[in-house]
Amino acid sequence: MRAIVISKPGGPEVLQYTEVADVEPQRGEIRVRVRATAVNRADLVQREGRYPAPAGVPADIPGLEYAGDVDAVGEAVTDLKVGDKVFGLVGGGSYAEYIIVHSRATSKMPNHLSYEEAASFPEAFITAYDAMVSQCRLSAGETVLISAAASGVGTAAIQIAHAIGARPIGTTRTAAKADRLQEFGLKDVIVNGDTTFAEDVLKLTNGIGVDVTLELVGGEYISQDLQCTAPRGRIVLVGLLAGASCKFNLGMLLSKRLELRGTSLRARPLEEKIVIAQTFSKSLVPLIGAGKLKSVIDKTFPLKDAAAAHEFLGQNESFGKVVLTV
Amino acid sequence: MRAIVISKPGGPEVLQYTEVADVEPQRGEIRVRVRATAVNRADLVQREGRYPAPAGVPADIPGLEYAGDVDAVGEAVTDLKVGDKVFGLVGGGSYAEYIIVHSRATSKMPNHLSYEEAASFPEAFITAYDAMVSQCRLSAGETVLISAAASGVGTAAIQIAHAIGARPIGTTRTAAKADRLQEFGLKDVIVNGDTTFAEDVLKLTNGIGVDVTLELVGGEYISQDLQCTAPRGRIVLVGLLAGASCKFNLGMLLSKRLELRGTSLRARPLEEKIVIAQTFSKSLVPLIGAGKLKSVIDKTFPLKDAAAAHEFLGQNESFGKVVLTV
Repeated sequence: MRAIVISKPGGPEVLQYTEVADVEPQRGEIRVRVRATAVNRADLVQREGRYPAPAGVPADIPGLEYAGDVDAVGEAVTDLKVGDKVFGLVGGGSYAEYIIVHSRATSKMPNHLSYEEAASFPEAFITAYDAMVSQCRLSAGETVLISAAASGVGTAAIQIAHAIGARPIGTTRTAAKADRLQEFGLKDVIVNGDTTFAEDVLKLTNGIGVDVTLELVGGEYISQDLQCTAPRGRIVLVGLLAGASCKFNLGMLLSKRLELRGTSLRARPLEEKIVIAQTFSKSLVPLIGAGKLKSVIDKTFPLKDAAAAHEFLGQNESFGKVVLTV
Repeated sequence: MRAIVISKPGGPEVLQYTEVADVEPQRGEIRVRVRATAVNRADLVQREGRYPAPAGVPADIPGLEYAGDVDAVGEAVTDLKVGDKVFGLVGGGSYAEYIIVHSRATSKMPNHLSYEEAASFPEAFITAYDAMVSQCRLSAGETVLISAAASGVGTAAIQIAHAIGARPIGTTRTAAKADRLQEFGLKDVIVNGDTTFAEDVLKLTNGIGVDVTLELVGGEYISQDLQCTAPRGRIVLVGLLAGASCKFNLGMLLSKRLELRGTSLRARPLEEKIVIAQTFSKSLVPLIGAGKLKSVIDKTFPLKDAAAAHEFLGQNESFGKVVLTV
């Protein structure tokens, strides 16, 4: 089969479209003919050699999500058959014509979706739902602060917040993205040229702060988050675009009884990945099927042009997802 | 009635034993004739003017826990009667002959306890149980790191860990306290002259780290905690003896999917204080009654000598609780 391979650590040019070994499903597994995948920031970091693939997934083929057709099933697979359309997350390897996934760790695609649309959902929506709802218990009537609101995870988080009756507040770095976010239905957008946004968030929440903060940027954003998250609020750290160190006010954590958690999907063991996929099937796929959650695709590239797609995402000008067709 | 009053912010000498207004129970409340109370670090900080009492409790009478007799009941109190022996937490005011508490926010004393013993339980054991078990879900087979293990909360945490089948590891600053902790039944004690202990904890846990960290010291201890807490571990910050700022490695929080929470009991609203008291009655009082959890009292002073008791606790040489008899 053909796949995109990281030939050595480096810039987008190290991604090579080439022939690799075929893959076969074993007990409990399915083989998926990938029809579309998407580019995530983690792929760029992996390409640079700073985020190695976890054990058990291809070390040199990036790609964390897919949509496609079940193409072969291993022994003891009872709930899926050849021809079913599926989508979901993998620990790596989806920049390829075929991937192997556990039959319990995937979800059936709603009928009306294209593969491109389907491939734009799993990483962004599962990350946002798992962090905001499963871990931070965001619920109706509450307010959630979403940093980098124009990103794939950000636009997913906005939609999920609306769908469950919560109020999203987003930050973004440019006025142009703020305009797009408002067209997209986000009423409260803060343009933070620098890293300061806590005061604006407090103004938008009558001085109380938000119940949940979905932190996609990290670094000094965390200091701001501590200031503008309400007493008993929950902060979940998903990304470190702005770095891994920050000034940290432990007094605020204690007096407001805050909860701060770090999360990542990729390194989770099989049993947790299955739970994630089953939660996706149960809680999000019906909303996708009903058209309440929509894919936000900025640009689509053919798989062979993955380098150009990486280049594009790396410019930080995209709004929503960058998809690859296979 | 007589009480200890903070005459102005300052050292132990500002505590005055004096006459104050009598108190009357209203609907749902009881009046307790306090027979013993205990000194907590928070009392010292309040005395210095840096930890004002929350709204609704006496502003100038310190004291967060009590043991005594129900002396009068307000309307609509059905589960307690005059003469019952009770103990529990209050938001302030227990350095006094009488206090008012909600009848649902107290617990009946096991029969065999003296008032001094009873008064040494609530703050330490409720703090430790609420932080380690209720919030951080410490369970059988897991390991918990307890900083300042020789403190009132520390010695309570060690006993609770043993009682629920978890393994405690403690840190303390002096070899003398380490010896006492070992006599007390704590097998794994680390003497940390400076703030470094992460490597020792990793050695004691086969390089894996602890499941839960009960952080009573704060400051740079948090940096160490991040290093020696296991993936998916929970860190709960209860005290800030070492200050409120620290170097913070967000990458570790994210890659290990750690959970860090701040907690404090005092500022909680009535409904939470009731839950705490009911949990104490249900989960800890039976173990106290059965002799599985024991009070650790270092020294007892009469209430009028509260200044001397503050002086003593402030020297950081105590092992367990400092109690006041009323």
